Amino acid sequence: MRQNGPVSLPEPRRDTRLDRYHDLYAERTNGLKASAVRSLFAVANRPEVVSLAGGMPNISGLPLDVLAESAARLIRDRGPQAMQYNAAQGEEPLRQQITEVMRVEGIEANADDVVLSCGSQQALDLITRTFVEPGDVILAEAPSYVGALNTFQAYQAKVVHVAMDDEGLIPEALRQATLAARAAGRRVKFCYTIPNFNNPSGVTQSVERRRAILAVAEEVDLLLVEDNPYGLLCLDTEPLPALRAMEAERVIYLGSFSKTFAPGFRIGWALAPHAVKDKLVLAQEAATLCPPVFSQFLISEYLANWDWLGQIVKFREEYRSRRQALLGGLDEHMPEGITWTRPGGGFFVWLTLPEGLDSNALLAQAVTNRVAYVPGTGFYADGLGTRNLRLSFCFPPPDAIFEGTRRLGEVLSDAIDVAQTFGVIPLPRKEQP
Amino acid sequence: MRQNGPVSLPEPRRDTRLDRYHDLYAERTNGLKASAVRSLFAVANRPEVVSLAGGMPNISGLPLDVLAESAARLIRDRGPQAMQYNAAQGEEPLRQQITEVMRVEGIEANADDVVLSCGSQQALDLITRTFVEPGDVILAEAPSYVGALNTFQAYQAKVVHVAMDDEGLIPEALRQATLAARAAGRRVKFCYTIPNFNNPSGVTQSVERRRAILAVAEEVDLLLVEDNPYGLLCLDTEPLPALRAMEAERVIYLGSFSKTFAPGFRIGWALAPHAVKDKLVLAQEAATLCPPVFSQFLISEYLANWDWLGQIVKFREEYRSRRQALLGGLDEHMPEGITWTRPGGGFFVWLTLPEGLDSNALLAQAVTNRVAYVPGTGFYADGLGTRNLRLSFCFPPPDAIFEGTRRLGEVLSDAIDVAQTFGVIPLPRKEQP
Repeated sequence: MRQNGPVSLPEPRRDTRLDRYHDLYAERTNGLKASAVRSLFAVANRPEVVSLAGGMPNISGLPLDVLAESAARLIRDRGPQAMQYNAAQGEEPLRQQITEVMRVEGIEANADDVVLSCGSQQALDLITRTFVEPGDVILAEAPSYVGALNTFQAYQAKVVHVAMDDEGLIPEALRQATLAARAAGRRVKFCYTIPNFNNPSGVTQSVERRRAILAVAEEVDLLLVEDNPYGLLCLDTEPLPALRAMEAERVIYLGSFSKTFAPGFRIGWALAPHAVKDKLVLAQEAATLCPPVFSQFLISEYLANWDWLGQIVKFREEYRSRRQALLGGLDEHMPEGITWTRPGGGFFVWLTLPEGLDSNALLAQAVTNRVAYVPGTGFYADGLGTRNLRLSFCFPPPDAIFEGTRRLGEVLSDAIDVAQTFGVIPLPRKEQP
Repeated sequence: MRQNGPVSLPEPRRDTRLDRYHDLYAERTNGLKASAVRSLFAVANRPEVVSLAGGMPNISGLPLDVLAESAARLIRDRGPQAMQYNAAQGEEPLRQQITEVMRVEGIEANADDVVLSCGSQQALDLITRTFVEPGDVILAEAPSYVGALNTFQAYQAKVVHVAMDDEGLIPEALRQATLAARAAGRRVKFCYTIPNFNNPSGVTQSVERRRAILAVAEEVDLLLVEDNPYGLLCLDTEPLPALRAMEAERVIYLGSFSKTFAPGFRIGWALAPHAVKDKLVLAQEAATLCPPVFSQFLISEYLANWDWLGQIVKFREEYRSRRQALLGGLDEHMPEGITWTRPGGGFFVWLTLPEGLDSNALLAQAVTNRVAYVPGTGFYADGLGTRNLRLSFCFPPPDAIFEGTRRLGEVLSDAIDVAQTFGVIPLPRKEQP
């Protein structure tokens, strides 16, 4: 074709550049970068590496024969509907069942206020596009889920982190961050929080803490986005009441079947105040026409015909033994000076290294020693987290997890030795004169 | 909760309003409105109405038993992979198979340049977010697919329409529109086109026309987005070569399994120049983590184990008889003064009403007479299309389609009579003195 075109304009610069479209991208595109988690996938999949990096659920306990029969019956009996287009909001029967799922965490909701999405990641995308202009502030607990930070960045939000302690997001810090951002002339669009078993820290908000956070939200007139993929994977207690269970108008709740059933169907949801729900449906229509229909039908069948809550109880047993392997391994193998959280559920433990160690710099050594983790900086929008790393206990079998902590212990012990030799870290007190 | 909060701020206005979050939405959100197509769904589903409105493919010919067995085997044998997370770009084996599908239209591509999406609608969303800032120009043939216009609006693009004739997009009009937009200080991001059986007009670009369009794109340095959901549903000729088959660097190609297999799995794809592909993958990761995984595996099985091209040949037979019912019915039932396109494939016929008639105003009468269509204005960003309407021949059986044209003929005849009575339309020549 090129030979035929009447090329009358001066030859553009593009031919000498790697990406001829570089100048054509929107500004938001330049902010996107490959996430640390994803670029680890290739490494983590090598069989000799124990990956404590990924957040893949362990779904090997699912009743494959039952699901196979269910899928076959669905296609045979209702294939023309299950494989057809559908409404942007999602199938009504599944939305109804989702209200039952949410009831386990104390939420009373109308199926009409539920919007389905292609994983709850996509619900987060729809919410962000609905609310956020470039430069708007999103408050997010520190540390926060890397995928959420990624989405916020895609809409050029300014993420302001809010401190956590071992009961989660600190209400007074939330209040101050909100008022400070507004005093600086910023529009604060919402606060993003994972109340249960925060990704990456594993920290859970106590019930009292939840009440205090909601009180601050009421006081300063703030919208909360409650992301709750792990709430039903509670390993020590019954599920706690969701923020949304205590307050309906000020909370957009995000749920997901990715951890309580299976992620490959890509079905999550948002439960939103009614007017917001309408906006999310329009956004969903522009984004996908409708979320995966066959997936919706299949999950609906699963919920109707299988003891899904009993299945979650089984998942909890699996994750309990994995958590024990990870925490036990850390107790046994971590050198002095390293601390970590002890989560009551979810998938993740958060390590803090001594000053002078950098989790990004150590990753290559860790992988060489056949163990992978996620460096902490991915979970902050502001460059913090160099002394942190995330370990997951969701996927490898318990003995592999335990072995992983041994390998990690070697790497960190060596690193501490080196740092002490060069005076970056003081020697432990007991060895000092 | 509210009683407990230390409410120190003055009571906000929100309580007196229907939507307390109204002031919090991003500007892009205010531009979104429910599409005419979607709001017709409720009506179109009533059994007594012949819907010539929807664009749902007729998938009743799919081999349900084969698919049922395929899905069951997939879950039993590879369930833990097919139901797990996967890479944002999509499964490599399916991307490889997609290069085979595209080869039917003359495209030579590398699987590494294919990015899967949640329907090709979502690929369009990813492309728009990657390139478009508010106010940027997207050129789009007139009329254009309503779902694309919806997405462009969601990113606050300024859509500039480019005229078509019965061979499609007019190259000289494209050239002038590009130069005029640039002369006005606008950044032109791309031209969106459906070369085969355009939705809604049914018009197809001739091969010579494609060459001329590409020559203009080369001349004025313009990126083309080629949306091709219907290309393989050609009813009179062999598939034509895609724009992307003639030019690799200047075209982003969008494909879909929604019309050649089934839409409910929500799998489409973009084939993009390599550097653009990298951006789309990052955008996909922020948007969904990964497109529906189980759907990818299932489609891959289908392509590997079923004569998918033979299946498309069968689909063509179905659509040929439906097109005949629609065009035959129009020939028989349309009053004088109405014209329409005669598409060589795809799903749609585009009607033009005489001056003085408004397809939006007539829709209620049509539905009352138990036939539905889509008014033309949805397919223009600029308010044109009041004298047009889209009829589809994809879904109802042929006799229902034929009956639909009879009912529509009644409505339009009545409307023309009324308009003539009130002098809005001149009486037909033969009845004039």
